[in-house]
Parts: sequence; C-alpha cells; structure tokens
Amino acid sequence: MRTSRLEAFSDGVLAIIITIMVLELRVPEGHHISDLLHSSGVGLLTYLLSFGYVGIYWNNHHHMFHLVRRVNGGVLWANLALLFLLSLFPFTTAWVDETGFEPTPVVVYGVNLFSAAVAYLVLQRVIIRQQGPESPLRKALGTDLKGKLSPVLHVAGIVSALTIDRDGRIGVWIALTCFALIVIMWAIPDRRIARAVREHEVTG
Amino acid sequence: MRTSRLEAFSDGVLAIIITIMVLELRVPEGHHISDLLHSSGVGLLTYLLSFGYVGIYWNNHHHMFHLVRRVNGGVLWANLALLFLLSLFPFTTAWVDETGFEPTPVVVYGVNLFSAAVAYLVLQRVIIRQQGPESPLRKALGTDLKGKLSPVLHVAGIVSALTIDRDGRIGVWIALTCFALIVIMWAIPDRRIARAVREHEVTG
Amino acid sequence: MRTSRLEAFSDGVLAIIITIMVLELRVPEGHHISDLLHSSGVGLLTYLLSFGYVGIYWNNHHHMFHLVRRVNGGVLWANLALLFLLSLFPFTTAWVDETGFEPTPVVVYGVNLFSAAVAYLVLQRVIIRQQGPESPLRKALGTDLKGKLSPVLHVAGIVSALTIDRDGRIGVWIALTCFALIVIMWAIPDRRIARAVREHEVTG
Amino acid sequence: MRTSRLEAFSDGVLAIIITIMVLELRVPEGHHISDLLHSSGVGLLTYLLSFGYVGIYWNNHHHMFHLVRRVNGGVLWANLALLFLLSLFPFTTAWVDETGFEPTPVVVYGVNLFSAAVAYLVLQRVIIRQQGPESPLRKALGTDLKGKLSPVLHVAGIVSALTIDRDGRIGVWIALTCFALIVIMWAIPDRRIARAVREHEVTG
Repeated sequence: MRTSRLEAFSDGVLAIIITIMVLELRVPEGHHISDLLHSSGVGLLTYLLSFGYVGIYWNNHHHMFHLVRRVNGGVLWANLALLFLLSLFPFTTAWVDETGFEPTPVVVYGVNLFSAAVAYLVLQRVIIRQQGPESPLRKALGTDLKGKLSPVLHVAGIVSALTIDRDGRIGVWIALTCFALIVIMWAIPDRRIARAVREHEVTG
Repeated sequence: MRTSRLEAFSDGVLAIIITIMVLELRVPEGHHISDLLHSSGVGLLTYLLSFGYVGIYWNNHHHMFHLVRRVNGGVLWANLALLFLLSLFPFTTAWVDETGFEPTPVVVYGVNLFSAAVAYLVLQRVIIRQQGPESPLRKALGTDLKGKLSPVLHVAGIVSALTIDRDGRIGVWIALTCFALIVIMWAIPDRRIARAVREHEVTG
Repeated sequence: MRTSRLEAFSDGVLAIIITIMVLELRVPEGHHISDLLHSSGVGLLTYLLSFGYVGIYWNNHHHMFHLVRRVNGGVLWANLALLFLLSLFPFTTAWVDETGFEPTPVVVYGVNLFSAAVAYLVLQRVIIRQQGPESPLRKALGTDLKGKLSPVLHVAGIVSALTIDRDGRIGVWIALTCFALIVIMWAIPDRRIARAVREHEVTG
Repeated sequence: MRTSRLEAFSDGVLAIIITIMVLELRVPEGHHISDLLHSSGVGLLTYLLSFGYVGIYWNNHHHMFHLVRRVNGGVLWANLALLFLLSLFPFTTAWVDETGFEPTPVVVYGVNLFSAAVAYLVLQRVIIRQQGPESPLRKALGTDLKGKLSPVLHVAGIVSALTIDRDGRIGVWIALTCFALIVIMWAIPDRRIARAVREHEVTG
C-alpha cells in the first residue's frame, strides 16, 4: 500500500482533533472580562498546550512519512493506535480544565501525552523494521535525542503531579512546565530529518 | 468517474466519524480516578471498540478501492449507504455508554454493526458486477471467509444480548465479546487482497 | 486558479456537514426501544433525508467540476455561498426534530433546502458564463429538467406546510414527501453529464 | 518540505472551523418564527460574518501558497499560529451571540479577528524572507493596501466598541460594521495576486 492515503487519513484525523478541542471550551455565562478569565482562562492555556502537541505530531508525522515509500499492515495498525491515543487529547484536556488543574486529571493528561509519545516511538520502530537494514528513517533519526528525552520529561511531570504538594498545586505546575518544555523543544525544527529528506530526494 | 474523489470524500467522513466519537465521552464531574472510571470507564471501552471498527472499515475500503478504476452511480450510492450506517456509530455507541450496557442498546448497537457489514458486502457486490466476469476484486476476495464469518458473529452477539440472562448481563458480555472478536479477526491483515494488489500493479 | 483545492475544500466541508448532523441526534434517556423511537425516531428520518441531500450535492458538485478547468473569483464566492447554505442543514434539521415536525420549522427547513438549490443554480450559471459560448457544462446540462423541477417541488412543499391543515400536520407530511421525492429523483444517476464527462475526456 | 501537505492540512482545519461554528447555533426551544429570531437571529448574523472571514482566509491562503514552492520550519509554525487563532473564532463568535452583543465580548471577538490578521501578515513576512530578494510573493503583493487597511479597521472597531455609548450599543454596531466592511473589501477578488499567479505559471 502506498503512503498517500494513510497520510491523507492521518491528516484528516489530526485536523479534526486539533479543531474540535475548541468545542470543549466553555463559553462564559457573564459578559465581563472576568467571566472569560474565570470560565475559560485555564481552558485557553491547556487548549494552546494540546494544540501545540497535535501540531508537533502532525509536523513530525509529516516529516517521517517523507522517508517511507510503502506501508504494511503493521505500520497501519501502529498508526491507528497513535491516532486513537491522540484522539483522547480533547477528552483529557477537558477534564483538566473542568476540574481546574486538580492533580489527578493532570496525571491522566500526562499519561495520555506519554502513551502517545510511546505509540509514536513504536510506529517509528515498526517502519524501521519494515525498511530493513538500509532504513533511511533509521539513518535520519541518528541518536534521536528529542525522542528519548520526551518520555523522560513526561514521566518527570507525571511523578511531580503525583507526589509534590498535592494541595498547593506546586507539583501540578512543575508537570505542566515539563509538558510545555516538550512542545518548545520539538518546535525547534529537526534539521537531521529535514537534511535526510533533501538528500533522499536528490539520490532517490 | 474516477475513484480518487470518492476515496477522498470517504476518507474525510471516516476521519470525522472516528474522531467525533470522543465528543460523546462524558468528562467526569469529580476529580478522582474513581470519577473517571465511573463516568467514562465503559465509555472508553466502547470508544475503543467503535474506533477499531471504523479503522477496519477504512483499511478494508482502502484496500478494496485499490482494485477499482472507475465507479458508476450504483457504486456511489452503495458507498453513501455504507457511510450513512457508519455515521450512526457515534450515536449507538453513546446510547450503549449512557445506559451502562443495558441489553436493548447493545442489541441496537449490534444491529448497527451488522447493517454496516451488510452494506459493505453490498458495495463489494455492486463493484464486482460493474467490473464484469474478469473482476479483479472477485479474484482477490476468493472465498472471503472473514466477510462471511462477520455477519454470523454479529447475529450471534445480537441473539445473545436479546435472550441470555437480560438481568445479569451475561448475554451482553457475550455480545460484546463477539463484536470484539470481529475487530481482532479483521486486524490480522488480509494477505489475499494485498497480494492481488501487488499482482494487479505489476500486470496492470 | 485550478479547481483541485476548491474541490478538496468543498469535499471537506460537505464531509463534515454530513457527519456532524449525527451529533444533533439526542441519545435516548431510557434504555427501551420505545425511548429510542420516542426521542430519536423522527430524528433518524430527518437525518436520513438531510444525509441524502448532502450526498446528492456532493455527487452533483463532483460531476459538475469534472467539466471545469479553472475558477475565477465569482465561482469561488458562489461556491462559498452554496457551502454556507448547506452548512445550515444540521441547524434547521435539528429544529425540525426538536419541535417534532411543527409546521414553521418544516417551512424554514424547506426554505433552507430551496435556497441551497438556488445557490447551486447560481453557481452553475456563474461557471457557464465564465466558460463562454462553448461551455462544456452548458452542453452537458441540456434542458436540465431535474434542476428546474427541484425548486418547483421545494416551493410546493413549503406552501403545503404553510397552508394545509396546520394542526393535523397533513401539510407537513406533504412537504416532507416533496423533499424526499427530490432526493429520490436525483439519486437516479444523471446520464447526460456522465456521458459528457466521458466525451470531454476523450476529445479534451 | 513541499507545500501540498501543509495546504491539505490547512484546508482540513479551515473546513472544520467554518463548519463546526454551526454547532454553536442554539436550536430555538419554541416552534414559532419569533423563537427562531429570538434565540438564533443574532447568531445567524455572526455566523455569516465569521463564515465570511474564514472563507476569505481560505481564499487568500490558497492564492498565497500558489506562489510558494517549499516551506521551512518557520513557515510551518507561523501557519500553525494562524490556524490556532482562527480556531478560536467559533468560541469568540459563540460568546458574542450568547451575551447578545455585549461590548466586552464584541471587543474580544475583534481582538481575535485582529490577531488572526496580524498572524497572516507575519506568515506573509516569513515566506517572503524565506524566498529571498527575488520573492514572487513580495512582487505579487505590491503595496498590499487591503492587508494594511484591515488592521486599521479592526482597531477602529475595537476602540468603538470599547468607548462609544456602551449602554446604547452604538459603538458595538460601529464595530460590527467595520468587521463586515473588511469581509466585503476582501470579497472583491485580488487581481494582483491572481495576475502574478498566471505570470508565474507561464514563466516558471
């Protein structure tokens, strides 16, 4: 199977996930700026965070499939598993918002982010195994520092929210800082894959 | 008419169906893990089940249209009928969840799954009839064991939920097991069509 | 501007319209089949009707743009106007459902259907004018019997719902029969344009 | 990276934004035409306004990327920022509606429109800088009168809603007139870019 329809379907699902999260933002009941901050203030922050995550997954997914010519059943199911976990973002984001950043919802949100990151790594592995020893994706990834640092930061965030000062919310804010750092880290474009794409296009 | 726009439209509808189901998941009102399990626990299970079904339909639809060059009006309407029945999944899934797996909603969910499976078989037939005696799709399908086993398992599930121990829910769990078995059965990739696609591309 | 991105955007909007209508279906509160019929029975009928309409617009839109090579600003805005009127279908359909087929909502639904049909005719005209005297679309349309009959049936339905037996709902059912007839009429594939597309592809 | 997948993803997000706004329209509770005007009358107006805005962004985005061959990381993130701000339209539009055109929500809506316009200008700049001194986009834009007039009209609207007759709503109506004027101004097709696209296609 060629990758074009898998990419189109994934793009569709990611476009919907990134957009329907706005439907979870509660419209303020009053008409003052304080009503907006009270009912949607934190919602806008987590919406921005989740929007950033989905944007990064779209971007990385996009780059990765530049190095893939054909997909087998395994790649297809690994990709569906990733989309399933990403599709839970609107749900876990809404829980964080509606409870006003209670520790447990933040932990569940972190587990959602973490499991999506793991699903992405699994998808990468499945592709590399399918491509065989000369895998262009494996060469492009190199040491994959970001890919290895992300799960560590996710776990650090989850552990903070679970353990540090549950009443005062300090652990929650450490967790959200970790999650935001991951977005910022990935937002810096990945020159390794970009370079490999260019080389691949020249030689292939 | 070429198949490209029909495939793009179907992909769009399937991407939306698979994603908006998450909007039906009720966000827990409390902030404990027990609130999550109580209000969304079963919802997550049926969401996963329906996600799996739509994923399989997308996958099979995708494979099938690799063997189709042109579509006539009949194929177009058979495809729309399939999309209509699939678009009811978020609705019937939500009913199962909100009633907490009562037998009647599970039966209606099963009828929804069954009718979509029948619509898919009808679509297959319409394409084969259009392609004529040398239909590459007919050759690729062969005995079509999975396609014939699915309706049987659907009916077995529906009958179980209707008849066995309606108060104790044993029939309901048998039904859901049948439905889950169908997903697992289809998740194993279909080598017959995959092989036919390769051969078709080589010779065609 | 080429038509490909306009077609892709229109497909996207139509796919979303056709699918989000299911979100307006109210999930029954009870778990009996009577609850389903009571709260969603009429909803399913109007959903099917509106699904049919959007399916026909997608189909006709698709066929029409096979005969279009380039679009100018006028075509683009006429197309956006059509999409706007189609995007109101979920809203007017929901009003019909939630009031249980009261005459006024049925009239508003009919006006929505009618105005979309007019917007489609306007789009056709704008394309024909852009294509000039040798317009392949004008030749393909011929007498355009269906296109001329649809507004008549829409008006007949609207007038029935407005005037005939508002309490007994007879006019409402005449109106819905008119609207359903239009769907059935269009569901019979349009051989004229299909033939013209084939000829156009052979000669062009 | 080529522009095709960025365009497809942007089209998807814009198609969803433009369509889900209809989900925010409240279905009237009564079945009289007065109920419709009362509960959805203003909603339909702002829906039309926001639909026009998203339609214009889609149109301009579409034209602009005709002059772009490749995108780097900066373009990608500037594009995501624009999509994020556009994705807030359904939210700010709903707030304006549900409060019945109170000054503060109208100001927030105006700030949303204004910030999206700024994000679009930033995206333009990022592309021009990437294309270098011979940028075809820079040549096509020329003086970019509309692009410079839009922010001025946005600010004029925001200031009016903030300061003029907050109780009598005169400032609010001046603001909405400004916002509507911007839509009308952009609806007149941009011949400069259209001409440049044609020339670019001939020479390139």
